[in-house]
Amino acid sequence: MTERVRVGVVGATGYTGAELLRLLLGHPHAEIQAVVGHSKAGEPVSSVLPSFRGRLDGKVEAFDAASLAERTDVCFLALPHGASAQTARALRAEGVVVMDLSADFRLRDPATYKTWYGEHAAPELLASAVYGLVELAREDLRTADLVAVAGCYPTASTLAAAPLLHAKLADPQSIIIDAKSGVSGAGRSPSPSTQFSETAEGLRAYKTGGTHRHVPEIEQTLSAVASETVRVTFTPHLVPMTRGILATVYATPARSGVTAEEATAAASKLYAGSPSVTVLDPGTNPDTAWVRGSNRAFVSYGVDARTGRIVGQSVIDNLVKGAAGQAIQCMNVRFGFDEGAGLGAVAVWP
Amino acid sequence: MTERVRVGVVGATGYTGAELLRLLLGHPHAEIQAVVGHSKAGEPVSSVLPSFRGRLDGKVEAFDAASLAERTDVCFLALPHGASAQTARALRAEGVVVMDLSADFRLRDPATYKTWYGEHAAPELLASAVYGLVELAREDLRTADLVAVAGCYPTASTLAAAPLLHAKLADPQSIIIDAKSGVSGAGRSPSPSTQFSETAEGLRAYKTGGTHRHVPEIEQTLSAVASETVRVTFTPHLVPMTRGILATVYATPARSGVTAEEATAAASKLYAGSPSVTVLDPGTNPDTAWVRGSNRAFVSYGVDARTGRIVGQSVIDNLVKGAAGQAIQCMNVRFGFDEGAGLGAVAVWP
Amino acid sequence: MTERVRVGVVGATGYTGAELLRLLLGHPHAEIQAVVGHSKAGEPVSSVLPSFRGRLDGKVEAFDAASLAERTDVCFLALPHGASAQTARALRAEGVVVMDLSADFRLRDPATYKTWYGEHAAPELLASAVYGLVELAREDLRTADLVAVAGCYPTASTLAAAPLLHAKLADPQSIIIDAKSGVSGAGRSPSPSTQFSETAEGLRAYKTGGTHRHVPEIEQTLSAVASETVRVTFTPHLVPMTRGILATVYATPARSGVTAEEATAAASKLYAGSPSVTVLDPGTNPDTAWVRGSNRAFVSYGVDARTGRIVGQSVIDNLVKGAAGQAIQCMNVRFGFDEGAGLGAVAVWP
Amino acid sequence: MTERVRVGVVGATGYTGAELLRLLLGHPHAEIQAVVGHSKAGEPVSSVLPSFRGRLDGKVEAFDAASLAERTDVCFLALPHGASAQTARALRAEGVVVMDLSADFRLRDPATYKTWYGEHAAPELLASAVYGLVELAREDLRTADLVAVAGCYPTASTLAAAPLLHAKLADPQSIIIDAKSGVSGAGRSPSPSTQFSETAEGLRAYKTGGTHRHVPEIEQTLSAVASETVRVTFTPHLVPMTRGILATVYATPARSGVTAEEATAAASKLYAGSPSVTVLDPGTNPDTAWVRGSNRAFVSYGVDARTGRIVGQSVIDNLVKGAAGQAIQCMNVRFGFDEGAGLGAVAVWP
Repeated sequence: MTERVRVGVVGATGYTGAELLRLLLGHPHAEIQAVVGHSKAGEPVSSVLPSFRGRLDGKVEAFDAASLAERTDVCFLALPHGASAQTARALRAEGVVVMDLSADFRLRDPATYKTWYGEHAAPELLASAVYGLVELAREDLRTADLVAVAGCYPTASTLAAAPLLHAKLADPQSIIIDAKSGVSGAGRSPSPSTQFSETAEGLRAYKTGGTHRHVPEIEQTLSAVASETVRVTFTPHLVPMTRGILATVYATPARSGVTAEEATAAASKLYAGSPSVTVLDPGTNPDTAWVRGSNRAFVSYGVDARTGRIVGQSVIDNLVKGAAGQAIQCMNVRFGFDEGAGLGAVAVWP
Repeated sequence: MTERVRVGVVGATGYTGAELLRLLLGHPHAEIQAVVGHSKAGEPVSSVLPSFRGRLDGKVEAFDAASLAERTDVCFLALPHGASAQTARALRAEGVVVMDLSADFRLRDPATYKTWYGEHAAPELLASAVYGLVELAREDLRTADLVAVAGCYPTASTLAAAPLLHAKLADPQSIIIDAKSGVSGAGRSPSPSTQFSETAEGLRAYKTGGTHRHVPEIEQTLSAVASETVRVTFTPHLVPMTRGILATVYATPARSGVTAEEATAAASKLYAGSPSVTVLDPGTNPDTAWVRGSNRAFVSYGVDARTGRIVGQSVIDNLVKGAAGQAIQCMNVRFGFDEGAGLGAVAVWP
Repeated sequence: MTERVRVGVVGATGYTGAELLRLLLGHPHAEIQAVVGHSKAGEPVSSVLPSFRGRLDGKVEAFDAASLAERTDVCFLALPHGASAQTARALRAEGVVVMDLSADFRLRDPATYKTWYGEHAAPELLASAVYGLVELAREDLRTADLVAVAGCYPTASTLAAAPLLHAKLADPQSIIIDAKSGVSGAGRSPSPSTQFSETAEGLRAYKTGGTHRHVPEIEQTLSAVASETVRVTFTPHLVPMTRGILATVYATPARSGVTAEEATAAASKLYAGSPSVTVLDPGTNPDTAWVRGSNRAFVSYGVDARTGRIVGQSVIDNLVKGAAGQAIQCMNVRFGFDEGAGLGAVAVWP
Repeated sequence: MTERVRVGVVGATGYTGAELLRLLLGHPHAEIQAVVGHSKAGEPVSSVLPSFRGRLDGKVEAFDAASLAERTDVCFLALPHGASAQTARALRAEGVVVMDLSADFRLRDPATYKTWYGEHAAPELLASAVYGLVELAREDLRTADLVAVAGCYPTASTLAAAPLLHAKLADPQSIIIDAKSGVSGAGRSPSPSTQFSETAEGLRAYKTGGTHRHVPEIEQTLSAVASETVRVTFTPHLVPMTRGILATVYATPARSGVTAEEATAAASKLYAGSPSVTVLDPGTNPDTAWVRGSNRAFVSYGVDARTGRIVGQSVIDNLVKGAAGQAIQCMNVRFGFDEGAGLGAVAVWP
């Protein structure tokens, strides 16, 4: 086992980058060697990310693959899609292990990528990328040099839906995902739709009708679990809170008489080895506040008494288990650390 | 047409009561004659409801049916179930028109009421009560002396779902309602689950699996619209905002090829006469912030491109169109006023 | 008395513009004739301000002074400083009465204006402008054709401090104003500092040390009240709420033995004619929630038992009594309407 | 140096208790041996504090001093005043070191305690208690067996004000503290004033005029620093956020020409040895979001250009540096651990 790993964070000045830095600072085996940013290059970290003042000194540096290769074993990329693929290529060429938090390497099929994002910038790397939802890909991650860390909505949605399909409890074509996210998922760039005054005390759906880019990612994973092509109805909502995703998943039972206990048992079995996922007793409804700031996920199942439908729920912190924490969990697996190393904290509650 | 109507508000010191007083103060035909409360009787209105200081003087008075009958034409009851039935009986015996905002007269079948609430306190009045969701009961309300004002979740849910069933666009047995509510729906009584610190920055489902008391109310109305017994899957969620409900409704089309335009047209037709409901163009997602403080509802329809499912949405302010405003809209119909009298305000935005 | 007044709102698509439209729609004497905007000209009002959909149709129009002069008696300007002065000049040249909500005509002294804002764009109009804090300028407003509507912080600060100076209860040089504002005061333009994720669940001071542009405005008014040059310490804070300002004002008594009752009496006397300001009993602490969405202000006084200092408090809704409502109150005075016309609503609470 | 310390948390089911457990779980030298509660005794920890499910199993136990003495070296008391004094006495009698987070041992003078809290339940222990604001009492804490952990407002207020008095930069009798706190400071017991709907989107002062119980605690500490009896004006405000205190402190310079740089230097010197307090450059305004979930404090100084007054600011998380974190910091000093052990995390931002 490697005792220490030298890490760089590229795209460090956004919300996900900041979360990576926060978690890596507390990681027992990680040494932050580089804080890389584009628009803020040259500025002190403490002025861009004031909460780090006195804990992480130095300046934001511009990206330089060769320099990073000298100083780091692994780099985390918290970049926009497109930019991420190019950066990953440069780092992989230098032999640096890459944990990519963008969507660039998540979709296996370049045609699907093109439909949703445009031309891929580094298609030759797609075959080697491993999709980083640890609970469903642990073994593959042990040797992965390029990890496509799962998206926030896909993580929450899949954690709730996968056990139902894996255990063949639900009709794969019946999955409806009503997902609700905090505002930080939209990133740090100012936008009218994420201004406090237009977001607080309001609630809305957005990118409805199957138009959200996370749809093909969810379908890809659930299709693999179900061993058939799965199409889902996915409706994201913006909730006036900073962190957290709750995915409420509706499914028609694959046969009559499916119980909440069966679904719960299926999830408990699937997630038995995970330090992150906790399966709740039937009838216990999780709260995103139970995972705020932590890498934990809670999943729960019920069966609607009136219609027989299965209702699954999962909660995560979109910036942790939905991004930075998941990436570090992937790193832990890849470098042979304890999978939960540096990720043991419980939620900041209340 | 009556020019003036004398009104009393019973249970005036809770959130719904306060909202009734706020709206009635601005109503062109209403005169507030009595502010009635139980636990706060004898206290100045301005100490119980400080925002009314200087606008509504006098004291909270104890309930006295005879006295109210002398001074009022109509009373609004914002009371807990059970208490409301008894109060309604006393007022009806004195000839006062009653707008009851509790659940006591909403369920037509006493057996159903008993299952969800216990023994009914005034079953002899059930037959005369008219369910007060104005858009679906306008004609009956014109002569109603006892109105069972629709609940908040049922209003939001029904406004989105009813057009689909009314126009036979959706399979009546396929309705899934994922509803999200602000915290004020839980009322003014302090509770651990509605404390700021345990509610802000968090999100959770509750009363899942068909156990929320609004389920039979929704099913009763949708069954009437569909002319068959409808069972729904209903999942309420608590959102960290004070006011607002967003109901996201999923339905399987009754036939292939149902379009968002058809659903939109069906809703536009059903709500043509309403001063409250505005139907949005397909693809426009409403925000609860657009109705905050107003008696308005926005409904919208889409069809999921990947699965063909219909997705309907509706937003209301739970304290206005979901309670106080709806009650006043019922009163307007009953007393022959313009249906939107006193209810014309747009949302307080941002 | 004029029965009807035709109004235009220039800069209608920001928060203050929207609030003007909301209040004017409910005003018994106002007819909205023009909704004017710059960047959104040509777009439907309902797409820029969705909460108005179905209540205010038509398009945002570009500014045209001559056209506005034909259709309106008075225009409200909700524009950035600089732009506002030029627009006011064009409208005044056409004879339109102007209610300017910018800072352009608030400072009497062009040199002071230059220090804080730069060169004045229409200095020749300064002499005719009347400062629109109605409670302190009612008589002058009756004939004012150009009103410099008071700013949000100056309104809250002055309402609390002025009675102490007017009645000579406080040392004029001892005034410290610790002001706390909701986020909507920063306007609708997206900015990093007003993003939900960086504003919710946090609190900070800003523009400290006497650098906020509202300082000279506050000092100008308090100097006039005190008949001497007053310098204040003013610290604004940003609070995670959309609307509301609370100004906490500290003052050293002008003589020993000044009581809260004296301060309360002084305020009651000064604000006796106001439909907006309510003076609370000593020891009652106002809440910004009591004025949310309303044109009301609550002021309150206490004396600190340990140090003898006077502590005054005032709360307003920054978008109403701090902007749009105050402007309409000025219009009411100018056109001879009841001063509180269209402004009678109590707060939207909770 | 002791390598391991066995700890108990008494009153573990409130907000401060939960925060103690969260931080102690991540502490390198602490072993949680007992989770003690009164009303929840016998219930699983995971049902009372769901965010700990899977991380802290077992049940809440009833208080038993002898049993705790066998299993723990130190107990943290997160109890109401009065109850805390009695519990501390029982534990001290058994030789257990006590970190008391209540107010019971903070005031040196039993007469002052009686004025503000009533008769003291264990006055014989007062002489041995050390006031636990680490930065001002580090040496005394090394041998303290009973620590009166500083309150939240006193910590924030003192951190900002003490350097000014310690360096004789400010007139000790001129201190005005305008403090703003998140809602969690009010504790977990449901109350009307901390309900979400009545707290969100509103702001208010409370316990004004020198009536808040933290006033004598602040004065006691500042008097010791200033070597004279100090009286302060202290106004607490309730802000719609869960965590965080910002204290804005106003002071008259002790002599002319006091600069922000002098104040900053004084603070830097006073807090040189602290792993918790970071002094910002003049003109940098701290945000409570920079300390959320962390044991950090930021302090900052400016001088008002117009009046010459010194304005100091400090931010803390009331549940961490204002309670649980500070208590652990005291424990670290007492048991010879690194002072920042287990407290190194940066804020959860955003």
